[in-house]
Amino acid sequence: MTKSACIVGGGVIGGGWAARFALNGWDVRVFDPDPEAERKISEVMTNARRAMPMVVDVALPEEGNVTLCATLEEAAEGAALIVEAVPERVDIKRKVYAQIEAVNTDGIIASSTSGIMPSDLQAEMAHPGRLIVAHPFNPVYLLPLVELVAGKQTDAAHIETAKKIYSGLGMYPLHCRVEIEGFLSDRLQEALWREALWLLHDDVATAAEIDAAIAYGPGLRWAQMGTMQTFHLAGGEGGMRAMLAMFGPCLKWPWTKLMDVPELTDDFVNKVGDQCDTQAGGLGPRALETIRDDNLIGIIRSMKRANWGAGAVARAHDDVLREVPSDAAPMVTQDRVVPIDWTDINGHMNEGRYGQIFSDAAEAVMAAVGADEAYITDQGLSYFTVETTVKYLAETHAGERVVVHTAVTEGRGKKLRCFHEMKRASDGEVMATCDQLMLHVSLETRRTCEPPADVVARVETLATLHAKE
Amino acid sequence: MTKSACIVGGGVIGGGWAARFALNGWDVRVFDPDPEAERKISEVMTNARRAMPMVVDVALPEEGNVTLCATLEEAAEGAALIVEAVPERVDIKRKVYAQIEAVNTDGIIASSTSGIMPSDLQAEMAHPGRLIVAHPFNPVYLLPLVELVAGKQTDAAHIETAKKIYSGLGMYPLHCRVEIEGFLSDRLQEALWREALWLLHDDVATAAEIDAAIAYGPGLRWAQMGTMQTFHLAGGEGGMRAMLAMFGPCLKWPWTKLMDVPELTDDFVNKVGDQCDTQAGGLGPRALETIRDDNLIGIIRSMKRANWGAGAVARAHDDVLREVPSDAAPMVTQDRVVPIDWTDINGHMNEGRYGQIFSDAAEAVMAAVGADEAYITDQGLSYFTVETTVKYLAETHAGERVVVHTAVTEGRGKKLRCFHEMKRASDGEVMATCDQLMLHVSLETRRTCEPPADVVARVETLATLHAKE
Repeated sequence: MTKSACIVGGGVIGGGWAARFALNGWDVRVFDPDPEAERKISEVMTNARRAMPMVVDVALPEEGNVTLCATLEEAAEGAALIVEAVPERVDIKRKVYAQIEAVNTDGIIASSTSGIMPSDLQAEMAHPGRLIVAHPFNPVYLLPLVELVAGKQTDAAHIETAKKIYSGLGMYPLHCRVEIEGFLSDRLQEALWREALWLLHDDVATAAEIDAAIAYGPGLRWAQMGTMQTFHLAGGEGGMRAMLAMFGPCLKWPWTKLMDVPELTDDFVNKVGDQCDTQAGGLGPRALETIRDDNLIGIIRSMKRANWGAGAVARAHDDVLREVPSDAAPMVTQDRVVPIDWTDINGHMNEGRYGQIFSDAAEAVMAAVGADEAYITDQGLSYFTVETTVKYLAETHAGERVVVHTAVTEGRGKKLRCFHEMKRASDGEVMATCDQLMLHVSLETRRTCEPPADVVARVETLATLHAKE
Repeated sequence: MTKSACIVGGGVIGGGWAARFALNGWDVRVFDPDPEAERKISEVMTNARRAMPMVVDVALPEEGNVTLCATLEEAAEGAALIVEAVPERVDIKRKVYAQIEAVNTDGIIASSTSGIMPSDLQAEMAHPGRLIVAHPFNPVYLLPLVELVAGKQTDAAHIETAKKIYSGLGMYPLHCRVEIEGFLSDRLQEALWREALWLLHDDVATAAEIDAAIAYGPGLRWAQMGTMQTFHLAGGEGGMRAMLAMFGPCLKWPWTKLMDVPELTDDFVNKVGDQCDTQAGGLGPRALETIRDDNLIGIIRSMKRANWGAGAVARAHDDVLREVPSDAAPMVTQDRVVPIDWTDINGHMNEGRYGQIFSDAAEAVMAAVGADEAYITDQGLSYFTVETTVKYLAETHAGERVVVHTAVTEGRGKKLRCFHEMKRASDGEVMATCDQLMLHVSLETRRTCEPPADVVARVETLATLHAKE
C-alpha cells in the first residue's frame, strides 16, 4: 500500500520534504498559496531526483505522486501525517493547525519549526496530543538529521511512530528529550553564526575568510564527529578532561563576543549580503546547490564503507530498500543510479567503476548462493576474482539508472564463473559486459579451497538453471 | 636540497607537525623534555604514515629524518624555520623564544598557539620581526587549515614566506589579517563548544546527542561550506538577506546561553569526561583516531573530483608532488599508496579499483603522448577504453605502495593498446596485469576519429621504443 503525507508550505523546506517522501515512494499532497509554489517545488524536486538516488546503492522505489492542492483542506483531509512548513511565526502556524483540525482529527501534525517550542505551537489546538516537532535540515533530501521534540501535551506514542517513519525515509531521528527553544542543533548553529556575524561586523574577516576557517579545518571533523568527541580526541591521551584543563579557561577570557548581538541595520545586512555574493564568485544559487549536493553525496558515501555517522544511516536505508534477487535467469544483481563520484575527466563513468558494479553484482550472486556477509566475516570463506574481461559498449553517465543481469555460466567445485550484462534501465541497451572468473578461498590461508556442500549445491543449481535460458 | 625544520614540543600538535614536514621530505629536529616524547611522537608518526599517503594520489617524496634532540639549543641551531608547539602559557613560550634567540638569530619562529596574540608572544624578543603564528588543527597531518597571524612587530615578508612553505606541505594557509585573541577558527569553535557545554551542564542532552545534532546535519555542510555560504544557500532565492530577515531576530531572543560560562567544577568536568567516555563506547583513543582519520581521508578525497574545498587543496598538493614519466620502457605510470576507501568486504583492494589504477595509468600515457587534460577539455578529443582484460595475481591491501609499469604494445592510427603491470613497490611482485585497448574519439560526436599528427607520432614512437625492450 502506498503511504501518503500532506505538506503545508512549499518553500525550501516544504519542497525538500516533498522530495524526501516522494522519492521514497510516498504520495504527497502539497498546499501553498504562493503562486510560485509549483515552480519552486519542482526545482527542489529536480535537485532531489538527481542527488538522492546517488546516495543509495540500490534502486529507490517508484516515485510517489506529488499533487499540488488548491486548498489546505483538500491537502490535509484524511492524511495520517501532516507536515507543516510555513513561516516561523506562532500565529501563522496556529492558524494553519486550526484549519487542519477542521477537516482532520487524528493525523500526526509534524511542525518543521527551527526552534519554536511545541508546547507553544499546540497550546490552542483541539487535539494537542498529536502535535510534534520534526525539524529537518536543508537540503532535506540529502541531510539525514531530523530533530523530534514533544510538547507538554504531546502523546509520547507519536514520537515513537515518527522515529519509525523518518528512519524509513533514510533519516536519523534525534529525539530532543528536553524541550528548549532552538532545540539542540540550532542552539549550536546559532552560537557559531552569531560569532561569525561579529567577525564580519568588526571587519576582522570577510564571509569567505570566516568560512575558510571552518571548511578547511573544524568542519571536516564535524562532518563525522561533533565538537565533544572531536575535543575528546584532541585532548590526546588525557581526552576531554585534558581539553577542559587546557582550553576551559579560554571560555572565560572571553575570546568570543559573549554579551551582545550585532544590530541588524540595513547597512549591516547589506554588508553581509554583499560579502556572500562576492564569496559566491558569480555562481548562482542553482550552481552552488549542485556543488553542495555533489559534495554531500561524496561525503556521505565516503562514510558508508566504515558504516559511520551519516554513512551508517545511508547503509541502513539501502538495507530497507534492497530486494533479494530471484534465481531465475536473468538474475537482476544490480539496479542503481550511477553516482557523480563514479565519473571521470571524460564526463562518463570511469572504467574502474564498471569493475565495481560487476563486483557488486558478483556479491549479489554470492549472497544468493549463501556466501553472504556473515559467511565472509564469521566463517572466513569467500570468493576471489582471478580474471575479468570487460567490454565497454556504450558510455554511461552520472544519474543514469542501470541494471545488471547475471548468468552463472560455470559452477562446480571451487569455480564460479559469471557473465554480467549492464543495461541502461530506460531502453535496455547493453552498455557493457563482463566475463568474470571467481575461485572459492579461505580467508585464513588466503588460498583456494572447496566450498561447503550447501554452497556448491546452490552454485550448481544456478548454473543448471541459467544454462537452460 | 633537503629542507629542514626545528620543532619545539612533541605533543599532539608538535608530533603532528613533525609528521606533516617529514612525510613531505623535510628533515626535522624535535626537542621535548617529556621522557615520553619519543613514544608519543612515534605514535603520531605511525598514524600519519598510514593516513597521509592515502590522501595523495601520487607518491610522497622520501621521508625526511626525524631526530629527537637532547637540548632545545641543539634542535634550534641553524634552523630556518622553528615551529613552537609548547603549552598555552605566554611565560613558557617567551622563555622558549629566549632560548632559541641565544643560538639562532634569523630563523622564522612559528608559534602553534591556538589563540594567544603574536604581539604578546613577541613582546620581549630581541628580534621580534621573525615571530609569526601558524596555528594548525588536529590531526595536523590531515587537516589542511593553518591560520597565519602577524604581530605588531612581525616582518610582513615572513607571512608571505610562510604561505609558500605551508602550501608546499599540502596545507591551506589562511592569513588572519586582523590580530585578535583566538583568531578566526577558535572564535567560532569556542562559541559552539561553550553552547555545547551548557546543553550538557543543564542536562538538556548528553555528549553523544549534542554531537549527533552536528554530525548528521550541519557538520556535513560545514565540511565543504562554512556557516555564511551555507545560510546564503538555505535562504533560498533570497540568499543571506532572506536568512537574516528570517532568523536574525532569533539571535536576540536569545536562544543561546549568551551571558555566562558554566563553572568548571570538578563535578562538571567529571560529568563531561564520563559522558565522552560513554559516547566512545569502549573505543580507546587509538581506535577512534583511526576511524576519524579514515573518515577524513574519505571526506577530503570525495571533494578532489569537484576540486572544491579541502579536495582542491589535496589536488594542488598532488600537482606539487607529481613527476612526469619518462618515455623509456617500462614507463612508470602510477606510483601511489592504496587508500582505505579502495578496499572491500574481503579486506583487500576491490577489483574495480584495479580498473581505476589502470585507467589512471592510461591517463599518464595519454598525457605523455599529448592527450592531456587541456587536450580533453579544450580540443574535445580523448581516448576511450573499449576492452580490458585484468588478471588478479595477488591481493593488494590498504596502505601498500604500488607501482604500475606500462608498455605501449600497439600504437597506430586510432588505436592505443597498453599492457600494464601493477607491482608491489617493496618487493616488485606483480599483483595484477591489464591488457587495455583504447580508441581515439571526438568528445563532440562521441565517435572514433583519427588523432592529430603529433599525437599519432608520439604514440608510434612509444610503441617502437617499448617493442625493443
